[in-house]
Amino acid sequence: MSVERLIAVARGEEPADLLLKNGRLVNVLSGEIHPARVAIVDGRVAGLGGDYRAHRVVDLAGRFICPGFIDAHVHLESSMVQPAEFARAVLPHGTVAVVCDPHEIANVLGLDGVRYILDASAGLPLAVYVMAPSCVPATHMETAGAALDAADIAQILTYDRVLGLAEMMNYPGVLFRAPSVLAKIEAAAGRPVDGHAPGLSGQDLNAYLAAGIGSDHECTDPDEAREKLRRGMHIFIREGTTARNLHSLLPMVTPANARFCHFCTDDRHPDTLLTEGHVDDIVRQAIGGGLDPVLAIQMASINTALYFGLRQAGAVAPGYRADLLVLDDLERVQVAQVYAAGQLVAEGGRCLLSAAEFPRVPTQATVHLDLAALDLTIPAGQGPARVIGVVPGQVVTKDLRLEPAVAGGQVVADPARDLSKIAVVERHRGTGNVGLGLVKGIGLRQGAIASSVAHDSHNVVVVGTSDAEMRAAVTAIAEMGGGQVAVADGQVLAACPLPIAGLMSDQPLEKVRDQVAALTKAAQALGSTLPDPFMTLSFLALPVIPALKLTDKGLVDVGKFQIVPLFGD
Amino acid sequence: MSVERLIAVARGEEPADLLLKNGRLVNVLSGEIHPARVAIVDGRVAGLGGDYRAHRVVDLAGRFICPGFIDAHVHLESSMVQPAEFARAVLPHGTVAVVCDPHEIANVLGLDGVRYILDASAGLPLAVYVMAPSCVPATHMETAGAALDAADIAQILTYDRVLGLAEMMNYPGVLFRAPSVLAKIEAAAGRPVDGHAPGLSGQDLNAYLAAGIGSDHECTDPDEAREKLRRGMHIFIREGTTARNLHSLLPMVTPANARFCHFCTDDRHPDTLLTEGHVDDIVRQAIGGGLDPVLAIQMASINTALYFGLRQAGAVAPGYRADLLVLDDLERVQVAQVYAAGQLVAEGGRCLLSAAEFPRVPTQATVHLDLAALDLTIPAGQGPARVIGVVPGQVVTKDLRLEPAVAGGQVVADPARDLSKIAVVERHRGTGNVGLGLVKGIGLRQGAIASSVAHDSHNVVVVGTSDAEMRAAVTAIAEMGGGQVAVADGQVLAACPLPIAGLMSDQPLEKVRDQVAALTKAAQALGSTLPDPFMTLSFLALPVIPALKLTDKGLVDVGKFQIVPLFGD
Repeated sequence: MSVERLIAVARGEEPADLLLKNGRLVNVLSGEIHPARVAIVDGRVAGLGGDYRAHRVVDLAGRFICPGFIDAHVHLESSMVQPAEFARAVLPHGTVAVVCDPHEIANVLGLDGVRYILDASAGLPLAVYVMAPSCVPATHMETAGAALDAADIAQILTYDRVLGLAEMMNYPGVLFRAPSVLAKIEAAAGRPVDGHAPGLSGQDLNAYLAAGIGSDHECTDPDEAREKLRRGMHIFIREGTTARNLHSLLPMVTPANARFCHFCTDDRHPDTLLTEGHVDDIVRQAIGGGLDPVLAIQMASINTALYFGLRQAGAVAPGYRADLLVLDDLERVQVAQVYAAGQLVAEGGRCLLSAAEFPRVPTQATVHLDLAALDLTIPAGQGPARVIGVVPGQVVTKDLRLEPAVAGGQVVADPARDLSKIAVVERHRGTGNVGLGLVKGIGLRQGAIASSVAHDSHNVVVVGTSDAEMRAAVTAIAEMGGGQVAVADGQVLAACPLPIAGLMSDQPLEKVRDQVAALTKAAQALGSTLPDPFMTLSFLALPVIPALKLTDKGLVDVGKFQIVPLFGD
Repeated sequence: MSVERLIAVARGEEPADLLLKNGRLVNVLSGEIHPARVAIVDGRVAGLGGDYRAHRVVDLAGRFICPGFIDAHVHLESSMVQPAEFARAVLPHGTVAVVCDPHEIANVLGLDGVRYILDASAGLPLAVYVMAPSCVPATHMETAGAALDAADIAQILTYDRVLGLAEMMNYPGVLFRAPSVLAKIEAAAGRPVDGHAPGLSGQDLNAYLAAGIGSDHECTDPDEAREKLRRGMHIFIREGTTARNLHSLLPMVTPANARFCHFCTDDRHPDTLLTEGHVDDIVRQAIGGGLDPVLAIQMASINTALYFGLRQAGAVAPGYRADLLVLDDLERVQVAQVYAAGQLVAEGGRCLLSAAEFPRVPTQATVHLDLAALDLTIPAGQGPARVIGVVPGQVVTKDLRLEPAVAGGQVVADPARDLSKIAVVERHRGTGNVGLGLVKGIGLRQGAIASSVAHDSHNVVVVGTSDAEMRAAVTAIAEMGGGQVAVADGQVLAACPLPIAGLMSDQPLEKVRDQVAALTKAAQALGSTLPDPFMTLSFLALPVIPALKLTDKGLVDVGKFQIVPLFGD
């Protein structure tokens, strides 16, 4: 883009590329809705109003124009597709920019994972900004594929499109002044540092903020959000696939504080993206819930651009990136047209760009397993065993004590009591680590299910009714180079290959959605009573959420934040 | 400041330095007023609320706490005192930070002038931020002391406390894409670029904004401000000594757009600072004019911090710089106490810091005149002469044609017709340039008045009734190393020495105010009928304001933007 040409067009000396006329602009700068013409050249807004000539004129016949939507915080990996495919999915919903935290892929691939996200999103009509992942690995009680220290963070911050430090989940590390944690924040000095502090309040909240944390997307209660906002946090209201906070938080948004409120999706799975949408869905629900449409659109655009220091973005104004939407109305928020950098990229809910126009960036293999050496046996012990108790639909678990079934001196599954065996098999570094245990509440009566999506280290997690079935499932995942699988009698019933870091597919979103649906159906056919067995599975290895979890290093008592034995105290 | 200590105090593990309790916080983040305790350590806010211990506890007994005020745009030189003395003047009024444009001193001293402002404000309790002056020299029709090109701007931007590019007054240079102008904006890419665009609208406004301009402080009409704000400009509402825009602009500020509105003083002279105050005066007037106090205080604090990217400033919140005010009420906005970086620096309208605590930074001599070679004679010409017609109280002039008085073949003053001679004597580079002409409306009946404050190049401007009186005045200024003077019969009647770049005194503000008052009185004793003869004088050499002005290069027809002869067309 030449600024000279932009100025010349703005002055009317040269024709614009595109003129949108007879629109009603949702002006997020003035808080008004007013009639507007928008002249665009070279991907930028040249002028509002005026008497512009253009090579192409679109008469909006009174429809609304608003800035494109920005997702303030998202893990692209949760879409299970590549960035380009994610872009194809969200552009028709009006999302023109996302600020993503490549936390998952960085826990697999480290710096290479961050660079993959940047490379695979380069040149997309969706602007993909990146926050440097702050918690790789997430804890010392698991083996991740990589570790990022403050020097790595500093390096990531030198890359284009990297804005700051991603959600600092390790808030105890902040409160107790862990030098490695404070060094990461220091590395991002002067840039936005996102927070992650569910339920933190009072003096501990003060302490967390004093360290320089600027936002939170974990509020679930309006009073919690009010306290955080009063003390300087930008409130990212999250409406993901699982965690849905909009309706509980909406009452805390007022005209006086909305400027510090934002929308984010955090994690939306393929089915949610396809059936409910993206940021448009949150805006729609917010307006439906009574929020003024201008405030809602500000929360989805300019507020987030300003927080992240994205200059000339998030509004429709001269010099701004011509990322804008045409809406038929402000109640249903149906996105009729989406312009990204002045190009019509989606219309009527369909992306106008073909998959061939998007980059395909290969990644290295990430599933390194010595299947021959894999030993899933659990020697019998004394007394009751610790058993992970699944809570349906939630990511927390119970820490149960149950007498296990034993056969041939080994602990075995007991489907009659809904007791399955669970293993977490390290897959990054060939350590041979295998964590072993028991889980109640999956419901399997036969077969096994396994996944290489297993927060936060994304080792292979497998639950099954026998060692042979579990081995078959792990073998299938190794053969796919990562993914999710359901097996019975050693045969694959359903699978979703995720060859990109074991987290993402190279297939279209619709296909992945269908594969995931087939997996759910297969797991339920094996007896699982859970609504989303693979979602549950993917959180059984996450040692920062109570109460009992399993990593490749063993069972984790999350309350004590330490590894504990299967038997005994 | 150690972040570890800040966090420890925030958690309550160690006592704070200071605890303000029983306050009511004007919370500019949430838009609320709520009870608050504020714990401070090492110059930062450690926590709000909580149950803090502190070495010192102040019971506010229900008084208000609000963030300290920030002046969004000011020329410190207009205070006629050094930065430290300016700080002593404005701190008691609650101003804790200013964003200054050292435009005047840069036109005298170039980079050295910018560095003087930075050095002379280093370590002050008033945070002095600097914008790189964009228009040095202001025009090609005068001789300034220096020139700053894009490379100089780039260098200035590397200095600490320099935030962006100062008001781009050369808007024709933007509209016509002057490469030197666009290069300066490009040098500041990604940083705030202030504008200066009185009356600009429509497509030309679009063009100016498309270049990346972010603010304007020259609005005089609410519709003008509304149009600019809608298109992306931050509106700095100016209330200076001469230019006063608050009351005309106040109707355009709404709860929906106030976040993009700010306050600035631009130019406040010593008497205004001492009798009316600073940003507090604007806040007070705005509230008196009906603006919600929280919005008014936001416009004087957080809004400006956010626009300029000043992180952890402009609000009272954990981690923020402890710049805060105690107010007795929100109507009169009497600033009872001022804390700068946690230190009580002013109380009851008086600065608690002694002059000895402030830096004194010497500057080089800037008045270089060859008095022996100075020739003020004007040969008589044919027909009427162009005469600068003063408009009382304004900076615009008229372009008059009058038959001059002639004696001995030379044009002479004619006090009976209120016709004085005027000269602009180049004082920076020893070029020997002298612009000569006639001015009507000063009212001098005898003597001469002169000033080295003469926008924008700050050559010596002198108006007098005879060459001898004018020479005496110029000589007095040379002897002072710059300043303002009134002479009669070759004797100095009153003087204000301004040895710092010929713009600023090294004396206390009160003394400068008294000297200026004495100068006004002396000029009036010489016959001047103007309310502020030296203010008028200082604008007679400014060739960007209509209609006829005089520089060291000669008479300027501002409409034609060219040098014109005294006689003839």
